[in-house]
Amino acid sequence: MNAIIITVGDEILIGQVIDTNSAWIGSTFNNYGIDIKEILSVSDDLESIENAIRSSLKKADIVVMTGGLGPTKDDITKVAICNYFKVGNTFSQVTYDRIEKIFAKFGRPMKESHKDQCFMPDNATLLMNDMGTAPGMLFIEDAKILVSLPGVPFEMKHLITDRFLPYIKENYTLESKIYHKTIMTAGEGESFIADRIAHLIADMPEYIKMAYLPSLGSVRLRLTAKHTDEILIKNKVDHYAQLICQELGSLVFGFDDQSLEETLLKIFTEKGLTLTTAESCTGGYLAHRLTSISGSSAYFLGSTVTYSNEMKMNLLKVKESTLSAHGAVSEETVKEMVMGLLTLTGSDYGISISGIAGPDGGSPEKPVGTIWIAVGNKNKIEAYKLNATKDRLRNIEYAANVAMNKLRLFIS
Amino acid sequence: MNAIIITVGDEILIGQVIDTNSAWIGSTFNNYGIDIKEILSVSDDLESIENAIRSSLKKADIVVMTGGLGPTKDDITKVAICNYFKVGNTFSQVTYDRIEKIFAKFGRPMKESHKDQCFMPDNATLLMNDMGTAPGMLFIEDAKILVSLPGVPFEMKHLITDRFLPYIKENYTLESKIYHKTIMTAGEGESFIADRIAHLIADMPEYIKMAYLPSLGSVRLRLTAKHTDEILIKNKVDHYAQLICQELGSLVFGFDDQSLEETLLKIFTEKGLTLTTAESCTGGYLAHRLTSISGSSAYFLGSTVTYSNEMKMNLLKVKESTLSAHGAVSEETVKEMVMGLLTLTGSDYGISISGIAGPDGGSPEKPVGTIWIAVGNKNKIEAYKLNATKDRLRNIEYAANVAMNKLRLFIS
Repeated sequence: MNAIIITVGDEILIGQVIDTNSAWIGSTFNNYGIDIKEILSVSDDLESIENAIRSSLKKADIVVMTGGLGPTKDDITKVAICNYFKVGNTFSQVTYDRIEKIFAKFGRPMKESHKDQCFMPDNATLLMNDMGTAPGMLFIEDAKILVSLPGVPFEMKHLITDRFLPYIKENYTLESKIYHKTIMTAGEGESFIADRIAHLIADMPEYIKMAYLPSLGSVRLRLTAKHTDEILIKNKVDHYAQLICQELGSLVFGFDDQSLEETLLKIFTEKGLTLTTAESCTGGYLAHRLTSISGSSAYFLGSTVTYSNEMKMNLLKVKESTLSAHGAVSEETVKEMVMGLLTLTGSDYGISISGIAGPDGGSPEKPVGTIWIAVGNKNKIEAYKLNATKDRLRNIEYAANVAMNKLRLFIS
Repeated sequence: MNAIIITVGDEILIGQVIDTNSAWIGSTFNNYGIDIKEILSVSDDLESIENAIRSSLKKADIVVMTGGLGPTKDDITKVAICNYFKVGNTFSQVTYDRIEKIFAKFGRPMKESHKDQCFMPDNATLLMNDMGTAPGMLFIEDAKILVSLPGVPFEMKHLITDRFLPYIKENYTLESKIYHKTIMTAGEGESFIADRIAHLIADMPEYIKMAYLPSLGSVRLRLTAKHTDEILIKNKVDHYAQLICQELGSLVFGFDDQSLEETLLKIFTEKGLTLTTAESCTGGYLAHRLTSISGSSAYFLGSTVTYSNEMKMNLLKVKESTLSAHGAVSEETVKEMVMGLLTLTGSDYGISISGIAGPDGGSPEKPVGTIWIAVGNKNKIEAYKLNATKDRLRNIEYAANVAMNKLRLFIS
């Protein structure tokens, strides 16, 4: 089976709200074995909604709509559905009683607009909403399914999980099963990786698809298989994933959206080691990333954001002579930063970063985007130079990603 | 003029990537006076892409496509465009030379797949990409515009801002003018503000629309007017913005998406003062926010991310007796953190934050979401308590926003 998702609302078209509902539905349906053919966002107007329903029902088995079911004037999805099916409305006493109960619970009077919410298209099968006022609605026409859900994320998720998918399970048999595996890599670009594993990709059966998902300093490789034989595709995908991992060696740091910070948390807590960071141009972003996951306090002791040269000298004991001879953005400085950091904090490992994040501040010898990173322990410190871009936030994120990856490789 | 946005990529349909590009394009085009009719996400297959181009060019003046221009096999947008226009490819020497330069800069050899990237549809006008390898492409057919851009966000943004919109500006005249003004507030919620300014909103002319854009700890109020008379709408919007600012007083910290960090940069550099921060539960995020804007080194000296109690004691001289009597998350601790910070760094002002970010780690007296913030100078330190949520990243962002706002109010 396949599906099209329609999101209704001007707030999405003008970019005021990012459409996260569709991503959730896409992922949930995909795991269930329903392909998403399209995602479509349309305006809060009758003609746009009706046209979207018409064209989507022609193309897909299931059309899922979210939004436009609230009590305010611009919520007109139900009118568009009645127009499309050429049906009238019926007052739903069940819905009225349920909404009345919700209002009684919060000690608030029911508004006229909430009574309007109880009129439902004549041909709707209602999906009871335990999380809010507007029920979901299901329609069948020529063996196609249209389902309309509120746009509030937790109501929509509840109706998909507890009402819609159980309905599909009971009434339909899905011919194909889907299996995914994502390989997380860092350290090389998309095209380098593509060349290295080209012979494996060429060898894969037709039903396995491969996608490259690059971000700053890392590339995710997603294998997806679709087939009636569930065991076959799991075995085959796992087999090719293993071959790809062998080929890529230490470029691979994890599976299925595990992040670099989660990988470091795992390595450090397993080994019982501690980490601190000394950041200049990244300004605390690396520490933020490391502490953005729960449990990081088990190994991450803290950071010094030594933005000024004085702080580099006072806190990390970087020598004034080093700064004047080589500058704050240099191999010598980042190495001294790690040394000073380990002495100051007593942590087992340290990372330091100093660079010219931009967009201003470069020189001919050290253009914007020049970034030095050092990682090490009291026995050994290694330094790396990056030539990044002129974009400040991009450089900060890139430097943090590379630093985490260099530490992972250093400690492994 | 109106536009349809097409996003190409299976990763969006299966929910692995949330489509933030469309929201950015929607908002940018809207500000410019171009209406978005639809946003459409389609699969990485030739037929889907070609059909999407065909149906969208029928409905809208401009069709913007993102994605599918990379060097790998699953990137097939260009093939779909050639099929749609029934044209062949031409090798673009300009593009080749540019890519070669990028590779030379990084000291890497160019791959065969990058040469393939240089073949462009015969009828394409290339939009030079200063941020990556794949250029944007612009096509005109029957007075309709098709533009195809890489899916990498910063490349896409660069091509829209620096190539596409200047092209539109030079070649087309938009009938209605749009004028926006955004008032930035912090410290009160949406409904409080709505009540305070209800009489002003009621008084506004029809052509001015008002939107509340709440985020963690702050609310943006966006006034939008659309009209043929450019001077009229500018005067009217500015007039009402002024009345709203008078009504809201110190809640207002800026205009037109000026951030709290930009506001602090302005205040501190004008007064010639310096700032440092001491962060526990925010883990460097506050320092990251302050240093995410260029020029922050003029007043921000650095930060200590004292995640462990040992670092609070060693670096910031927080007393062991304070930590054992009141705990790390307490008024006493955050005040001592600021005192220690000012002594350690010699900065004029300091901020400290200590809390339980969650999702674990709370107690009955100090549940998850309890966060203490202190701001001050050597003469005076004030502390504030927040009761936030159980969501770690949300709490971190909220605490940083409140801390910046408290410092703004403290220093003003």
